[in-house]
Amino acid sequence: MRAGIFDSGVGGLTVVKSLIEHKLFKEIIYFGDTARVPYGVKDKNTIIRYSLEAVEFFKNFNIDILIAACNSVSAYAIEEMREVAPFEVVGVIEPGVKALKRKVPDKTSKVLILGTKATISSKKYEKLLIKEGYENLLSIAPSLFVPIVEEGIFKGEILDVTMKHYFKDIKDPNAIILGCTHFPLIKQEIQNYFKDAVLIHSGEAIVEYLQQNHGYNKVFSKTDLKLFASENPENLKKVAKLWL
Amino acid sequence: MRAGIFDSGVGGLTVVKSLIEHKLFKEIIYFGDTARVPYGVKDKNTIIRYSLEAVEFFKNFNIDILIAACNSVSAYAIEEMREVAPFEVVGVIEPGVKALKRKVPDKTSKVLILGTKATISSKKYEKLLIKEGYENLLSIAPSLFVPIVEEGIFKGEILDVTMKHYFKDIKDPNAIILGCTHFPLIKQEIQNYFKDAVLIHSGEAIVEYLQQNHGYNKVFSKTDLKLFASENPENLKKVAKLWL
Repeated sequence: MRAGIFDSGVGGLTVVKSLIEHKLFKEIIYFGDTARVPYGVKDKNTIIRYSLEAVEFFKNFNIDILIAACNSVSAYAIEEMREVAPFEVVGVIEPGVKALKRKVPDKTSKVLILGTKATISSKKYEKLLIKEGYENLLSIAPSLFVPIVEEGIFKGEILDVTMKHYFKDIKDPNAIILGCTHFPLIKQEIQNYFKDAVLIHSGEAIVEYLQQNHGYNKVFSKTDLKLFASENPENLKKVAKLWL
Repeated sequence: MRAGIFDSGVGGLTVVKSLIEHKLFKEIIYFGDTARVPYGVKDKNTIIRYSLEAVEFFKNFNIDILIAACNSVSAYAIEEMREVAPFEVVGVIEPGVKALKRKVPDKTSKVLILGTKATISSKKYEKLLIKEGYENLLSIAPSLFVPIVEEGIFKGEILDVTMKHYFKDIKDPNAIILGCTHFPLIKQEIQNYFKDAVLIHSGEAIVEYLQQNHGYNKVFSKTDLKLFASENPENLKKVAKLWL
């Protein structure tokens, strides 16, 4: 099986990491729109336009499924992509909600959703969670987490005061959805801040989703990874080497 | 006289503010490429490509001069823009260097250049400063300043620890070039950190440059401002109302 992974930048490699660890695919074609990153601050129409361009890119490859690793794309563009794509298209939001349901089945749980401005404004997580019966929801867009991670800062004083800035009024969530590909890179610090919360990671969620809902049960001996970027592919390769 | 102002986003409004205060133009047409902001993390070819598209946009208006408020555009794309533009094109880097020369004429002064990754990598400020005889130069890209300002944070703990992170090894600069349109919005905090440094602001520098080198000495009773953005023009108008 061959998967396409679409992300606004390099962050989607956190999803690739999970897919490679579970050997779900023989080949992964990754495209990061690094020339126009970040998507999380852009509006709906722009995100849809860029996502449809990505579908055109993936038409050049014989992929079985396209995974939108970017939560902002998953929040706004999945339906539009499906309309024009000759392959299956899945996002990370529905898998994230299903993972939460398995790990934190108590519907009275307090769920904190962390995402970009675009993802949070879409209310996509909230709508799906309410449909599942969860009612105790809180969404915030800790916008500075993305550039902090991109600056290579994964712990320390800057992250500490920034977490305090965004989290200071939030009391003891039972579950936290890491609704942006960058957030798994600081998940240990988020876990240290909210010690008792269960963290939901898009990469792990999509693996379980593909295995359980799409019958991706074959395990390949290894996964070939091809990396493409709309600018500076060398940097994408460098980050891939570092993270994977 | 009618000026076009080109910026990657809303930050160029800090330059517009200076131009309006000095009433140099009868009309200002502002275009912020908000759909693709920020430019400061993009590479040279992408910045040139986007800047040439902006020139095409301004061909629809009868402007006398196009001012690239964005330092990253000024660092990489001015020559290329001049080749295709039917109007004059100026950036903010040469004006910034001229302003420094006037305010801090001592060539042994320690000059700290702050800019985006793109601006700093270009070494454009350094080349011009060395040409002028300055030798004691230090350049850094405090990348987190831009998203912090965009988050509406102009002072406080996050900015304090972030300044410490970038500035901790820098001793007593005599002059600081605020080489990004976002930095004037936190200039008071930068001034508090480096109390004795003279700060060079692109907006003020371009006003002096136009008056002294381009004969813009007429004062108009008021400046009409027209705002355009490649996405979310409402937000640009909101920020303009707030800053101007």
